[in-house]
Formats: sequence, C-alpha cells, structure tokens
Amino acid sequence: MEALEKKIINEGTVSDGDVLRVDCFLNHQVDVRFLNEIGKEFHRLFGNEKITKILTIEASGIGIACIAAQYFDCPVVFAKKSKTLNQSGEIYSRTAHSYTHGHDNVVTVSKNYLSDADRILIIDDFLANGSALAALVGIAEDAGAAIVGAGVVIEKKYQGGGDSLRARGIRVESLASILSMSTENGIIFG
Amino acid sequence: MEALEKKIINEGTVSDGDVLRVDCFLNHQVDVRFLNEIGKEFHRLFGNEKITKILTIEASGIGIACIAAQYFDCPVVFAKKSKTLNQSGEIYSRTAHSYTHGHDNVVTVSKNYLSDADRILIIDDFLANGSALAALVGIAEDAGAAIVGAGVVIEKKYQGGGDSLRARGIRVESLASILSMSTENGIIFG
Repeated sequence: MEALEKKIINEGTVSDGDVLRVDCFLNHQVDVRFLNEIGKEFHRLFGNEKITKILTIEASGIGIACIAAQYFDCPVVFAKKSKTLNQSGEIYSRTAHSYTHGHDNVVTVSKNYLSDADRILIIDDFLANGSALAALVGIAEDAGAAIVGAGVVIEKKYQGGGDSLRARGIRVESLASILSMSTENGIIFG
Repeated sequence: MEALEKKIINEGTVSDGDVLRVDCFLNHQVDVRFLNEIGKEFHRLFGNEKITKILTIEASGIGIACIAAQYFDCPVVFAKKSKTLNQSGEIYSRTAHSYTHGHDNVVTVSKNYLSDADRILIIDDFLANGSALAALVGIAEDAGAAIVGAGVVIEKKYQGGGDSLRARGIRVESLASILSMSTENGIIFG
C-alpha cells in the first residue's frame, strides 16, 4: 500500500535495537482518517470472504480492527492480555511473548464470542516474530472457527513470523512489508 | 441515551461484587455498528467545541474513541498503561488505581502528542471511582491543553468519580448513568 509506505518513511523513525516508531499515526497517536484507508484496503483484500468477526489483541490492534470492521459490517473481538475480574466463565487462552515489553502475556478470549460458526479475519498493527498472531490463530483454532486470514499493517518480514504463519497455510496480507531496516540505510520495503 | 440503556438491560449482566458485564458489546466483543451511534451522540454533545484531539486510555477506550473521532475528524491519542521500549522521549505521567485489575498503573502520554494548542475531549468506556479519568485530566492539564470535557459511555454515578470531576469544573457527559445496581433489583438509570 503505497500511501502507507510513504507515511512510514515521512512520519516514522528507525531507532537502534530494531525499533520502528510509528506512534505518531498508528499506535499511540492514531490518524483515524488514515485508518479508514487501511480499513478499505483490508476490505479490498478480504471483502469476498464472508467474514463474521474480526479478531485482534489489545491494545494497538483495537482501533485498526474497529475502523476496518465498519467495511465488513461485523463485530470485533479483542483478545485480552490478562484475565481480569470482569472476565468470567470459560476462556480460550494462549501464551505470547512480547518482545516490546520483554515478558510473556496470557492472551485470552471468552468462549462466548468465538465459535465454529465464525469466519475470522485476524488484524494487528505489527507482525515481527509472530508470537501475538500465532496466539490469536491458536485461539481461533481452539474455537473451531474458520481462519480466513490475517491482515497486518506493518510486517517486519526479515523476522520470519509472517512466513512461519504462511507455511502453516494461513493467508497473511501485510500492507507494508519491510525487508530490512537500519538507522544508516533507512527502510527497504518489498 | 435510550438505545444504550436498553442495550445494557438486554445484553449486560450484573454480578456480585458490583460488576456490570457489557463485554458482549463494549469491552471484549465490540458492536462496531452500535459504537457509531455512541460516536454520533458524543458529537451531538461536543460537536461545537472545536476539538483538536480525543484522549483515551488503553485498552477498552480505544475503539470507542477511534469510531467517535470520525465524527470530529480529529486524531486520537491513547494513554499507555506502562512505559514500553517503543515509547521514548519525554512523557506526561500520572498514576491511576485499577479496581478491576487490583493494582496501580502508571499512565503515560508522549509529550509529542499533546500541547497547549490542543482542545481535548476525553473519552472512556466506564466511569466509576474516576481514577483513570482523573489521570487523563491531569495529563491534559500538564500539557496545558484546554479540556473541553469528558464523554463516558457508562457512569456508575453512585461511586462518585464523575461528581468529583464535575466539582473540579470538568464537563462530564455520560450516555448511561447508573444510580444503583444489584443482582436482586437490576439496574436503575437516572
């Protein structure tokens, strides 16, 4: 998605430690008008798939998923990263390692909100090692839902998480795919 | 907002421990079509206020804020509950106690995304003791921004958090205001 690559180049910054900061438009401040362009693009890619629910994970995925869901006219379910007192009853759960936060999260979804009648599109902001996305895939599988695919805004392709999901037969569509990235040479898309 | 009160009665459940569960449409599964009605109502209430940014807090506020922001045509800034490796530079921070999770959170916003030029609408899903909202108010004050008001979907009015904010001169608008709530007598709005 050319407009996204331009936006990453113009507004994002690459820092040491393999960090791409896009918190000016995607995951801290949110350019909601631009999220609509992202939502339309996900709908162009997956609009024929009779999606019944979009599955994402708190926190940064939620805004992207909610804006995109308007084009699919379906609800969003966002997986939680810790079991709270407000979440009772039976849950699906998987463990995901957060490299950003440096610890493991227990990722949970109430069994009330995913079933074998669902056709799921998984959406998230970033795909790097794929730990969060793999947890969502596992949860959708546990529910017996059909996983139509995963739409991610930015894939760090060189980290391999997307390709391992593709090797498992999951359709993964990234709107911007980063082949390499460094403070010296900037970002190479591909 | 009558449609919201009906939805809470029809789809929500009251449990022991003063818990109102609306995770079927608001804060786990998200009824995005209904969020648009909520967004329109916030715009009806605050649409003349020349809002430049909507400020919310992860996680449940994000979807509500992003959908509402479409009606205001402004960006969203969501406060984070822990400082991550991806968040560098100067931050505004306040501490908020989460009664749901039973611990304190450090709530942070990058100084890049709030300034004294901003006119802020604060949005969140729940207002009970007001700890999260007070943290957001403090952050907006630290930035020198004008706080136009706070829009919350559900206020537990009997917990007093909303009234303490009103006593500080903040305009607080709740789309559903709960006067009392119990498993025996259900929910009384007012």
